[in-house]
Amino acid sequence: MPELRKDPVMGRWVIISTERAKRPSDFKVEPEPKSNSDQCPFCEGHEQMTPPEILAYRNDGSSRDAPGWRVRVVPNKFPALRIEGSLDRHGEGMFDTMSGVGAHEVIIESPQHHEDITGLSQHAVEELIWMYHDRVIDLKKDPRFRYVMIFKNKGLAAGASLEHTHSQLIALPVVPKRVSEEMAGSREYYSFKERCVFCDMIRQELRDGARVVADNASFVAIEPYAPRAPFETWIIPKTHNPNFENAQKQEYEQLARILLLVLKKISVTLNQPSYNYMIHTTPFHHEALAYYHWHLEIMPKLVKFAGFELGSGFYINPTPPEQAAEFLREAKVE
Amino acid sequence: MPELRKDPVMGRWVIISTERAKRPSDFKVEPEPKSNSDQCPFCEGHEQMTPPEILAYRNDGSSRDAPGWRVRVVPNKFPALRIEGSLDRHGEGMFDTMSGVGAHEVIIESPQHHEDITGLSQHAVEELIWMYHDRVIDLKKDPRFRYVMIFKNKGLAAGASLEHTHSQLIALPVVPKRVSEEMAGSREYYSFKERCVFCDMIRQELRDGARVVADNASFVAIEPYAPRAPFETWIIPKTHNPNFENAQKQEYEQLARILLLVLKKISVTLNQPSYNYMIHTTPFHHEALAYYHWHLEIMPKLVKFAGFELGSGFYINPTPPEQAAEFLREAKVE
Repeated sequence: MPELRKDPVMGRWVIISTERAKRPSDFKVEPEPKSNSDQCPFCEGHEQMTPPEILAYRNDGSSRDAPGWRVRVVPNKFPALRIEGSLDRHGEGMFDTMSGVGAHEVIIESPQHHEDITGLSQHAVEELIWMYHDRVIDLKKDPRFRYVMIFKNKGLAAGASLEHTHSQLIALPVVPKRVSEEMAGSREYYSFKERCVFCDMIRQELRDGARVVADNASFVAIEPYAPRAPFETWIIPKTHNPNFENAQKQEYEQLARILLLVLKKISVTLNQPSYNYMIHTTPFHHEALAYYHWHLEIMPKLVKFAGFELGSGFYINPTPPEQAAEFLREAKVE
Repeated sequence: MPELRKDPVMGRWVIISTERAKRPSDFKVEPEPKSNSDQCPFCEGHEQMTPPEILAYRNDGSSRDAPGWRVRVVPNKFPALRIEGSLDRHGEGMFDTMSGVGAHEVIIESPQHHEDITGLSQHAVEELIWMYHDRVIDLKKDPRFRYVMIFKNKGLAAGASLEHTHSQLIALPVVPKRVSEEMAGSREYYSFKERCVFCDMIRQELRDGARVVADNASFVAIEPYAPRAPFETWIIPKTHNPNFENAQKQEYEQLARILLLVLKKISVTLNQPSYNYMIHTTPFHHEALAYYHWHLEIMPKLVKFAGFELGSGFYINPTPPEQAAEFLREAKVE
């Protein structure tokens, strides 16, 4: 059974993941890319190679764990957390631990062996976003969970072990540290200004224009003022909304449109880099906050975080965001 | 001139490093290992390939920027921050910025082309630690600086671009976020318990033994209870001391001894992995704290931090620290 442990100084939680327990000889310098379409467990027709599906958008007449799906969600075969069991918090002397209860799911974005979202149609990306929505709505009903982190690892350098395009989610029994920090920072700004920090940011960025990559009716994509890494890009809804899962149908359409556009621009500009993206939204049981604003963060994997970044939480970024925004604005995509 | 910028939500600072400005075509998937001993700028006899030295421990009769040194400190050729100039804090609308003033130095650990600290003698490692000490003492006199982060990147995967064994330091005009968080966490523990959290940790770890890797008269090396990554190892002074630079001569000897031992154990157990280490100490102008305790953190680079870690600040660790400690305790080294 995996275990959650809390660092007594930093207050951060780590998952000691016994399902993936590793001995020294298991660490390779670089894992090999694991798949071609013949052996790929995520390709249509190979449904038996994954655990049974949790949810899929299917064509009429197709059946569970068989071909005929468009987006398919399955449990991660090597889950970081386990879905069974109750929360058990206790101490070990001065330390704090909790049973490793949570959900770890894989969202297979396409039945075909595309290697990136950029190979998908606008409609397919919309369905992917609806799937994120549906899984959050469902997991929110489980009283053990406080947060669902939706994220994507694309490419070996960004931590993907299979190339077939997919996202993941992890439902957690505690609010993760990074999210708590964003909430606290936003709350502090709000208590000083009585305005949402993200709403202020969008207003200033749209007026200045120098860090704007693209925008549409509902969203703006910017290079943030203080990016951790070159070409870090945020997609933020233009209208204040604390919860990803409470957006409207037209907004999800617009999100799919801008996400696909921005990922294509990144792919063209940086020669199909590895990247991560993650959705930051309000934790469960905190509805209708005036101070927090959900958004999606994209981090192309171009530089390494080393001792200085690990030790300080400072980041050294060799590309000013204004330059990055200009390259992305000018990138021509179909 | 590089620039420091603050994220308005998270409060973290980033360095926009114009000295290293990068265009999209500059990002390669993997940089090539840059050196062999003929062309290595850190080897004895190649002193002209680096900027002029700041400080060196030299044999009698040798002269500045010439052979005859044992440990040598030079400015980083591509510094993240610049030593010249005054601090200039100002706003850009809602955002905060500061001129990128700081020091970025390279500490060359040996005149010979060793690729790791593990190739050095006990005496050479002692001198390296004295050099850390001397540079901190000197930089502390500069009223612009609030912190010096001493760190080491060993191996390509850990961000080293030259293989000749070296450490780095960056002096900063603000206290870095990770250090502030450790200080805040330690202060909170102290206000509740009236004891130092690190002192409590050492006491419990030495009593339990399961996570202890090694100890000597002045230091203990442990796998922390909630490690971010497999084989993360902390070296902590047994006696309460908030400041790295205020230790006694015998303690630096003992530190060199345990650091060399632990790095050799890691090297043998994990087949010479890339790794980072960093020293966490009290920021300048905070002397004699009862609640904070300096230490050194070693992070072997065995797993990738991906979207989940970036987005959540949670870590998934596949190796329980008790197992890692056992492997390291049992590792035989000369």
